Amino acid sequence: MQIDLNADLGEGFGPWSMGDDTAMLDIVTSANVACGGHASDPDTMYRTLCQARDKGVTVGAHPGFNDPLGFGRRVIPMAPDEIGRMVVAQIGALQGIAALAGVKVAYVKPHGALGNLAARERGVADAIVAAIRALDPQLALLAISGTQSEEAARAADHPVFSEVFADRGYLPNGQLVPRGQIGAMIHDAGQASARLLSFLETGQMPVVGGEPIALKAQSICVHGDGPTAVAMARDIRARLTAHGVTLAAFLEG
Amino acid sequence: MQIDLNADLGEGFGPWSMGDDTAMLDIVTSANVACGGHASDPDTMYRTLCQARDKGVTVGAHPGFNDPLGFGRRVIPMAPDEIGRMVVAQIGALQGIAALAGVKVAYVKPHGALGNLAARERGVADAIVAAIRALDPQLALLAISGTQSEEAARAADHPVFSEVFADRGYLPNGQLVPRGQIGAMIHDAGQASARLLSFLETGQMPVVGGEPIALKAQSICVHGDGPTAVAMARDIRARLTAHGVTLAAFLEG
Amino acid sequence: MQIDLNADLGEGFGPWSMGDDTAMLDIVTSANVACGGHASDPDTMYRTLCQARDKGVTVGAHPGFNDPLGFGRRVIPMAPDEIGRMVVAQIGALQGIAALAGVKVAYVKPHGALGNLAARERGVADAIVAAIRALDPQLALLAISGTQSEEAARAADHPVFSEVFADRGYLPNGQLVPRGQIGAMIHDAGQASARLLSFLETGQMPVVGGEPIALKAQSICVHGDGPTAVAMARDIRARLTAHGVTLAAFLEG
Amino acid sequence: MQIDLNADLGEGFGPWSMGDDTAMLDIVTSANVACGGHASDPDTMYRTLCQARDKGVTVGAHPGFNDPLGFGRRVIPMAPDEIGRMVVAQIGALQGIAALAGVKVAYVKPHGALGNLAARERGVADAIVAAIRALDPQLALLAISGTQSEEAARAADHPVFSEVFADRGYLPNGQLVPRGQIGAMIHDAGQASARLLSFLETGQMPVVGGEPIALKAQSICVHGDGPTAVAMARDIRARLTAHGVTLAAFLEG
Repeated sequence: MQIDLNADLGEGFGPWSMGDDTAMLDIVTSANVACGGHASDPDTMYRTLCQARDKGVTVGAHPGFNDPLGFGRRVIPMAPDEIGRMVVAQIGALQGIAALAGVKVAYVKPHGALGNLAARERGVADAIVAAIRALDPQLALLAISGTQSEEAARAADHPVFSEVFADRGYLPNGQLVPRGQIGAMIHDAGQASARLLSFLETGQMPVVGGEPIALKAQSICVHGDGPTAVAMARDIRARLTAHGVTLAAFLEG
Repeated sequence: MQIDLNADLGEGFGPWSMGDDTAMLDIVTSANVACGGHASDPDTMYRTLCQARDKGVTVGAHPGFNDPLGFGRRVIPMAPDEIGRMVVAQIGALQGIAALAGVKVAYVKPHGALGNLAARERGVADAIVAAIRALDPQLALLAISGTQSEEAARAADHPVFSEVFADRGYLPNGQLVPRGQIGAMIHDAGQASARLLSFLETGQMPVVGGEPIALKAQSICVHGDGPTAVAMARDIRARLTAHGVTLAAFLEG
Repeated sequence: MQIDLNADLGEGFGPWSMGDDTAMLDIVTSANVACGGHASDPDTMYRTLCQARDKGVTVGAHPGFNDPLGFGRRVIPMAPDEIGRMVVAQIGALQGIAALAGVKVAYVKPHGALGNLAARERGVADAIVAAIRALDPQLALLAISGTQSEEAARAADHPVFSEVFADRGYLPNGQLVPRGQIGAMIHDAGQASARLLSFLETGQMPVVGGEPIALKAQSICVHGDGPTAVAMARDIRARLTAHGVTLAAFLEG
Repeated sequence: MQIDLNADLGEGFGPWSMGDDTAMLDIVTSANVACGGHASDPDTMYRTLCQARDKGVTVGAHPGFNDPLGFGRRVIPMAPDEIGRMVVAQIGALQGIAALAGVKVAYVKPHGALGNLAARERGVADAIVAAIRALDPQLALLAISGTQSEEAARAADHPVFSEVFADRGYLPNGQLVPRGQIGAMIHDAGQASARLLSFLETGQMPVVGGEPIALKAQSICVHGDGPTAVAMARDIRARLTAHGVTLAAFLEG
């Protein structure tokens, strides 16, 4: 049993920091690095990429809506083509900094509202995939398992990997339990790990209100911010490895 | 006699435009395209790059201080290394859009206050050259002739081309006549062209208050904004070609 | 017959300009001045307010979504209370500049997507009215005639004036003909003026596909940007005055 | 013996926080609240003002260069008049939010690089004082003791209060010991308090390398960010009150 552990990192902005990247980079195997859209700036990108490099963590670009005040969590109305242009400009910016840091950007994972929009709207997903392909047909997409993003990449024969969430409950139809509903968030590392182990052993993900469902995933997403994020991620990692799971990046950096 | 004609283009910002890019792209052979620092955004970059591509104009990146309100004309205090990171992030963003537009970014010309700072401070020039080299050792610099920028590139054995200004007077020491002094600006296309022709024929640039001086340049910079910019640039181009000068980009796009 | 003529002005941003404010300020009687949200900056506000003062044009605040790249034409998802805070911060900024220019901000007109949202969502309209009232219970609202904005102000017993559009067609239900449909835009000044005169004489606005409807308005909104805006506005003004209409601000500045 | 204790608060930005405002508002008697220039946004301003109101802390506006990435610590080249306009726009924005929160903005303290620039350049100080006077001749300035800011306000007969720094060493000429030199920073609360008590008792401030000098101050500035800021500020407050000093705002909110 082997899987990747990813988290959103490098989400500071000028003088402001977000979460404990140093601690998280000892836990995850892939880092989704903000590109100056929803967060980050050239100095923050550089520090994050150097840390990831030094700790052997694979790096992905984490583009988001160009909306720092909203942290990329608000849908900014844009046509799919505009989104594609925004995404490649952000990936390109990170690639520029990555060249300075001597690391490779191995994949792309859309952030927050952009990621959720691409997950449910095929036109947006297609535009993002097409834009990434224009930049580099080998630059993989990290998609939410079972979504339009994943299907758009497969339809374009573009390399794609999929993730499940460590701390979000699933519904029988494969969707996440909406925030605010019972079972939406899993706050206990033991419970989260047990569910992940069950999924890793059987390929079936336990859900809220039904039988486990088949999901495919090469990565588990853990959260990097919030007061308990580091402890939760570290605990999950320890429990997975204690049960014989090998944690390794889905791509080499 | 052959030389390049370059101008700063693609300097709109969201709903706001600057100058008449469409007209200028029929006149120049190289376009310095803003990268989202002092001006531009992904959509503006894309439109500009597509137009340049369609008209066969070579494209360069035109990074500037991240200061749209000041249009990159104010020096933002930054360490040389910070400047290097800002510059590669902007070049990378333009390269991302260029991949979408199917064009190649052939060179880099720092904008406004950044270009002037690099021209006079070797530490800044070195940092910019080092950052460009990390990104791509073949990505040429377009420097102001006779400045620290040019020397920094030569010292690093980095490909460099140099420019003279069509509408700025020179001093016997090779510096520009400071704005506000007599002879600083040349407003007459005939006068500007006569001076450029003299330079192209002899390699000696006429100056204010002295004998012509030796300058090397592969490009002439014309301005793209202001009410008379297009007419002035078109007139200079016509006069140069009428005297047998071939206008051609110093690099292919 | 007397009515006000208003336009959105002061919508430059740093080095970028928008429309011909100088010409428009000779035509309108009220100027909706951008406040740094969708456009403008302190210097642009100051120049605009000084010009309006010198020409005796009444000034209103024109707050919009904090989204210069989208020019305030995109709905940024925000709770009504957040919108209220955004609006008073922008009005306050303009009031600060108005104190420097020695003019009074007489009213508030929400811009673009914000104005349209407030027109159709009562919760947003209520939040805007409540925020304005907290700032100054005498600071009038300029609302689109027949909308939730107008009703929210009336319900709060807040001073409100209403506008009709010079160049937009109306439907029998009082709504605007959606852009893209036949009759949405009126491009001919003669046609626009004839319709406005009919409205001013009868209180009934001609509509597309039905009988004229009763509308109340103290102001006519004309557009200030676009290549034909000045000519259209000037023509409408001339035709209205030629038919005996007095053009005067609904409030003194 | 009575004096005010002030700190820079409300310096978050969208999703990012800075320091522990809740703790600091239990310690200080005046809060310098960021206005959206170097930090903050309407929601952050509102939260900060509501907290200050609930804890009975007097509120001042804390305008800074419009440079969040540099946190207002970089001098952005601007003419004095431009600075004046920037300052009143920011104060106005905070006043707008203050109206919503039901609090009064009692004074203005320029932030960071702007405060330091105004302290040493009389033209900048004059422009800031003139701008504040245009807004409200009763809106006091909080200046660094013994600087051009203070003198500019006195010359204009504008209400002014002065501050000394709890944790910065002074030179015999009344200037601060430059950062990086011995004695620049005072990290020990006991030492800081002893020095402040000596100043409060005698009106003479101990300096590095000389005899104590006469300084006038109605406020002591403590820092609100950094890992030890809260503990240091709380300790200083406790030591001052233990020695009979009354801590009270120099102005009522």
